[in-house]
Amino acid sequence: MLIAKVVGNVVATKKNDTLTGYKLMVIQPMRADLTEDGCQKVAADYVGAGIGEYVLVGSGSSVRVEEQRKSSLIDMAIIGIIDEIVV
Amino acid sequence: MLIAKVVGNVVATKKNDTLTGYKLMVIQPMRADLTEDGCQKVAADYVGAGIGEYVLVGSGSSVRVEEQRKSSLIDMAIIGIIDEIVV
Amino acid sequence: MLIAKVVGNVVATKKNDTLTGYKLMVIQPMRADLTEDGCQKVAADYVGAGIGEYVLVGSGSSVRVEEQRKSSLIDMAIIGIIDEIVV
Amino acid sequence: MLIAKVVGNVVATKKNDTLTGYKLMVIQPMRADLTEDGCQKVAADYVGAGIGEYVLVGSGSSVRVEEQRKSSLIDMAIIGIIDEIVV
Amino acid sequence: MLIAKVVGNVVATKKNDTLTGYKLMVIQPMRADLTEDGCQKVAADYVGAGIGEYVLVGSGSSVRVEEQRKSSLIDMAIIGIIDEIVV
Repeated sequence: MLIAKVVGNVVATKKNDTLTGYKLMVIQPMRADLTEDGCQKVAADYVGAGIGEYVLVGSGSSVRVEEQRKSSLIDMAIIGIIDEIVV
Repeated sequence: MLIAKVVGNVVATKKNDTLTGYKLMVIQPMRADLTEDGCQKVAADYVGAGIGEYVLVGSGSSVRVEEQRKSSLIDMAIIGIIDEIVV
Repeated sequence: MLIAKVVGNVVATKKNDTLTGYKLMVIQPMRADLTEDGCQKVAADYVGAGIGEYVLVGSGSSVRVEEQRKSSLIDMAIIGIIDEIVV
Repeated sequence: MLIAKVVGNVVATKKNDTLTGYKLMVIQPMRADLTEDGCQKVAADYVGAGIGEYVLVGSGSSVRVEEQRKSSLIDMAIIGIIDEIVV
Repeated sequence: MLIAKVVGNVVATKKNDTLTGYKLMVIQPMRADLTEDGCQKVAADYVGAGIGEYVLVGSGSSVRVEEQRKSSLIDMAIIGIIDEIVV
């Protein structure tokens, strides 16, 4: 999973039906010391994350293992909110 | 998902049968501030995107979750048209 | 999918049985302006591509969706020959 | 699989239910000569690894092949503890 | 698939059970001209490759398509020994 910061969201009216109902957040991948690393991506929010929060981001088929998401066209999702990184 | 800009399309007469009927668009991955990031790729268009539009691009097995696409040899697709990126 | 150029092929006598019968081509990923981008890879040829041709390259589980390939140990394949890139 | 060093862990109270019970470790990918290579990631610990240990890290659907993990939202896991790298 | 050179192996006594019986080789990804490209990884050996040999490396779910490997926690494997690269 990636460490990332939620930095915004995307508005997309015309989209694949299976994306309806998900908030699509812009996430910035981060290093463990909370410096930025690489390009922003868009992740579906599974946990109610807010702008500015540090989150865990899953990708690939892992984000569709739950029965209700098996047919969702999602390849990246926010799956946890990070309270603390201990390094 | 990637933020990308549709910058062109590819013509391929000789191709795997399962690609027939899909428009194959050239997409440029973008950062959230709409500067370019990385190499162009080719994505099947699922939503009727036009040249110059900013789009959401899904990849991997996510783009084949829908019944009618399960046997399509597609690993990247345009799955939404971005109206606005709020960062 | 990647835009790539076919630049050679690989001879491998000792290999997993499921690879038998496939031509294993060396492909060079390309940008849309046909400059090189990144390291060469090896892709199974599904469409009869020749050296020097520009091709579409699929990767991941997409290249095994067809019934006859479900048990083939292939993670990258040439799936179309590019006639033209319009950008 | 990646060679990595366990450098910390992540505390995330609010997370997808399927992650409950897993220790989420911060791992630093390494080269074979044990110099760092690339950004830290978060991996579920399957083997009881400790801070400072060198480990094998698997990713993608491989980390969910076991029956008890098929529905876990995990895309990266520590799957072995490295005793020695012989190069 | 990657072109790679086998440069060593990893000893891991404590590991996921499904890895038992596989030799875990350290591989160095290579360009077609046999110069190094990128970080070393660890791959399960499916073909009896030796140190110093050039090999084909598959990754992702492709390396688990065979019945006897469906439940193995492997995401990268040596699947062929390269006799010659013709470029």
